[in-house]
Amino acid sequence: MDFYQHLLNAQHKNNSLLCVGLDTDPDKLPLHLRSSVDAVLEFNRRLIDATKDIVCAYKINLAFYEGAGDRAWHILHQTLASIPEELVTIGDAKRGDIGSSSEMYARTLMEDYRFTASTVSPYMGEDSVRPFIKNSAQGAFILAVTSNPGAKDFQYLKINGCPLYEQVIKRVKKWNSLHNCGLVVGATRPAELKKIRSMTADMPFLIPGIGAQGGDLELSVKYGGQRGIINASRSILYSTDPGAEAKKLRDEINGFRS
Amino acid sequence: MDFYQHLLNAQHKNNSLLCVGLDTDPDKLPLHLRSSVDAVLEFNRRLIDATKDIVCAYKINLAFYEGAGDRAWHILHQTLASIPEELVTIGDAKRGDIGSSSEMYARTLMEDYRFTASTVSPYMGEDSVRPFIKNSAQGAFILAVTSNPGAKDFQYLKINGCPLYEQVIKRVKKWNSLHNCGLVVGATRPAELKKIRSMTADMPFLIPGIGAQGGDLELSVKYGGQRGIINASRSILYSTDPGAEAKKLRDEINGFRS
Repeated sequence: MDFYQHLLNAQHKNNSLLCVGLDTDPDKLPLHLRSSVDAVLEFNRRLIDATKDIVCAYKINLAFYEGAGDRAWHILHQTLASIPEELVTIGDAKRGDIGSSSEMYARTLMEDYRFTASTVSPYMGEDSVRPFIKNSAQGAFILAVTSNPGAKDFQYLKINGCPLYEQVIKRVKKWNSLHNCGLVVGATRPAELKKIRSMTADMPFLIPGIGAQGGDLELSVKYGGQRGIINASRSILYSTDPGAEAKKLRDEINGFRS
Repeated sequence: MDFYQHLLNAQHKNNSLLCVGLDTDPDKLPLHLRSSVDAVLEFNRRLIDATKDIVCAYKINLAFYEGAGDRAWHILHQTLASIPEELVTIGDAKRGDIGSSSEMYARTLMEDYRFTASTVSPYMGEDSVRPFIKNSAQGAFILAVTSNPGAKDFQYLKINGCPLYEQVIKRVKKWNSLHNCGLVVGATRPAELKKIRSMTADMPFLIPGIGAQGGDLELSVKYGGQRGIINASRSILYSTDPGAEAKKLRDEINGFRS
């Protein structure tokens, strides 16, 4: 099944645009779990079990797993094995290197872990992105406008009157012959989200920045549209009842869908 | 010891500007090693043993190790343990994420693996780079002009008459209060290398692209200057006599030093 269809099916199955980001920080786990050998894995399993009928996707931020050293690979594999196949899994790794190295990164994320999609940094251009979009069943979300303060340093610089992120989007549209490209657009940037949606009819957006980062939920849903995937991480992970919190957010999002 | 001093000492020790890139591809190992449990580690140990009196640094490309799954952490640690402390180790990972996630990536590279420096992608701006330059003993090489074809897609786009990579360099100079920033400038870009050296008096450059990628050695040495680190990977790794090949290249580089 191609990537866009996989995403649409997952959204339809749980009537949801919500993605939960498994940015599981070992230092923030509940005390009763910390004694377990793989506390992070146990935490993720419970989280997935509580939310798998509520979300369309899980985003796994590799930054939070690499510190586990020789356990990281096992934790990631077992976490991924707990996620129902119908849902989308996003390897949030923001990789990007010369073609031959990106090929190796892509192999790990797409063939070993079998993520449905990965996040990719555009700075090194086409050959750094290609290995992530060579197979129509798996996609890439390329960084366009990010949710963090540093987004202003380079992404907004004007080239012939157009910000750098628009140049990125123009290229991504050209690279998208297999219809498996998406964009990362921060929820903290509603004006840009509106503009970018007008440039890219049906391209999926991964929209992080709701919750802890203070992004605008209503505008993210309005401008992100039916192919907007709204990500929340910390606000769900560390709530006392993640299932209820996810359901509340899913329903709030659906209330804003037109 | 601060990062720049560490690098100068390493260059002085072996009278060398050469860095060997340990982009060890398991599929390209000599047949007699492939039966060993940790063939990549064995290969790296022999390589380091043959070159440790010839180079100033080793660059470890994480892309080539992550595919080893649960053995990756062990192979990386043991490879690093084989490198003499006086030399510089560069974690070539090209990470870059929102501040809190970059913090996690930096912790793994700098506190767990204890690389002397890391490569970092600039697209997400200051808060994505900061965690890598917060400690004067360890540095970061920020991507400026890369050696691959895709460099042309965004890095050369003009902003008020200046290419994006110059905007990156201007910011990096501002972030460099601890004097531990460097730049990645491809050996395939001699004109840019010359221009960038004129903008950054004493900043270290990591210069990949010699050898398999066809970069210009003489001009890389001339324009990179005494703080240019010339990286070679495949041309040394897969030569029949890596020690002799590294020595030949080190001496060739020294012949071009003014």
